[in-house]
Parts: sequence; C-alpha cells; structure tokens
Amino acid sequence: MTESDIETTNRFEPRFDVSGLITAVCVDAAGGEVLMVAHMNAESLAMTRETGFAHFWSRSRQMLWKKGESSGHVLRLVEMLVDCDQDCLVLRVEANGPACHTNARTCFYRKVTPDGLLQRG
Amino acid sequence: MTESDIETTNRFEPRFDVSGLITAVCVDAAGGEVLMVAHMNAESLAMTRETGFAHFWSRSRQMLWKKGESSGHVLRLVEMLVDCDQDCLVLRVEANGPACHTNARTCFYRKVTPDGLLQRG
Repeated sequence: MTESDIETTNRFEPRFDVSGLITAVCVDAAGGEVLMVAHMNAESLAMTRETGFAHFWSRSRQMLWKKGESSGHVLRLVEMLVDCDQDCLVLRVEANGPACHTNARTCFYRKVTPDGLLQRG
Repeated sequence: MTESDIETTNRFEPRFDVSGLITAVCVDAAGGEVLMVAHMNAESLAMTRETGFAHFWSRSRQMLWKKGESSGHVLRLVEMLVDCDQDCLVLRVEANGPACHTNARTCFYRKVTPDGLLQRG
C-alpha cells in the first residue's frame, strides 16, 4: 500500500517497527485520561483482540505479558483506534484498579515544571 | 538512579531509547482526546520546552520539525507529564487546527472492528 492508501484503507494493517513492536497508548474509556503507554508485538496484539484484555511485550524482560496478570489490575478493552499511518494504537480501556505498577491511577502522575522539576499531580 | 528512584524523584531525567528518542503523546488540553503520537530527541524536547510549541524528530526524514511549521497547525504546550519510568511523555496541548496531516482533528480517526476492519469515527 502507498502512504495515502494506508491513511484511507478500511483494512487494519498495523505497521510494526524494526523491533517488531507497535506503541499502544491506553486511555480511560470513561474519562479519556492517558493511563499508560506500552508496546505490543504481533502476538500481544492478537491476544489483546482475542481475549479483550490488554497484553503487551516487555522490552526489558523480553516476554509477552498480560497487564494485571499478577496484580489483578487488568485493562479491559473497550475500543481500539489506529492512527493515520497505522504505526500507533490507542486502547480505550476500563481499568480494574491502578494502571501504574507504583499503584498510581495513571503512570503519568508527575508534571514537568518549567524549571525542570517534577511535581506530583 | 535506581528504578525506584526514577519513579519517585522530582528531577526530570528523560530516558531516551537506543535511537535517542522518547515517545510523546499529544492530548487535547481541554477535552483530553489523544491527537497524535510522535517522537522527540533531546533537541526537539528542549525546543518544545523553550518555545512552548511542540517540536519532534522525524524518523523518516531524519530531521527536527516544528509541528505545524508549514500548515500553521501548531500545538501549543499547556503542560507536560512524564511517566513512572521517565521514558514517555504526555503533552497537554492546544491545537491550532487539525492535528493530523490528513486534516482530521486527530490522527486516531479510525477504530479497529472485531473483524479487523477500520471504521471512521
């Protein structure tokens, strides 16, 4: 497909990067807040679509993981969106508990101040 | 810093990947909708913080670009958030026009249906 076809097609043809990964932005289906950003390979994307729960690829552990497998804080998929060039996904999810492993509701719990400090929200 | 320090520090220490890039998720500051996802190198991050307008690194063109430089559809930075392990940013922005180069309001204008088709929102 040409670049233009990719933007207009109704066929889902996710484009994985050189490491075989695609970025997945998880947002709260109700409030819209960004909860976490992780990566998927083809297998974790397939598992997410088949099971209805977010699965990712851990770059540090080099393994497939189901978000919340040990904590119980799973992310139930409500809707999946893809961007214009099909190299990024947005997952609208229902979070069963805090999305962040630090137990914060979202991984983005700090803002960057103009002087380069981080401030908890 | 240890992993735990990175999660709790009030120092902004963005962690760029092996290509020197960090993912930036741009969301509408008012409604919270994800508008686009792009990448920043250290220079584009610095330019964004200095100028108050989103700058990125184009992987395809291998160059710094100011979003909206030719179209006028700039993204004014309202607030920047960083995630727990400081390898991803959320930019809360005010968009001066469509964020997507296709002239859609957001790059995420298609949802993935269960049967693998894309549907415009």
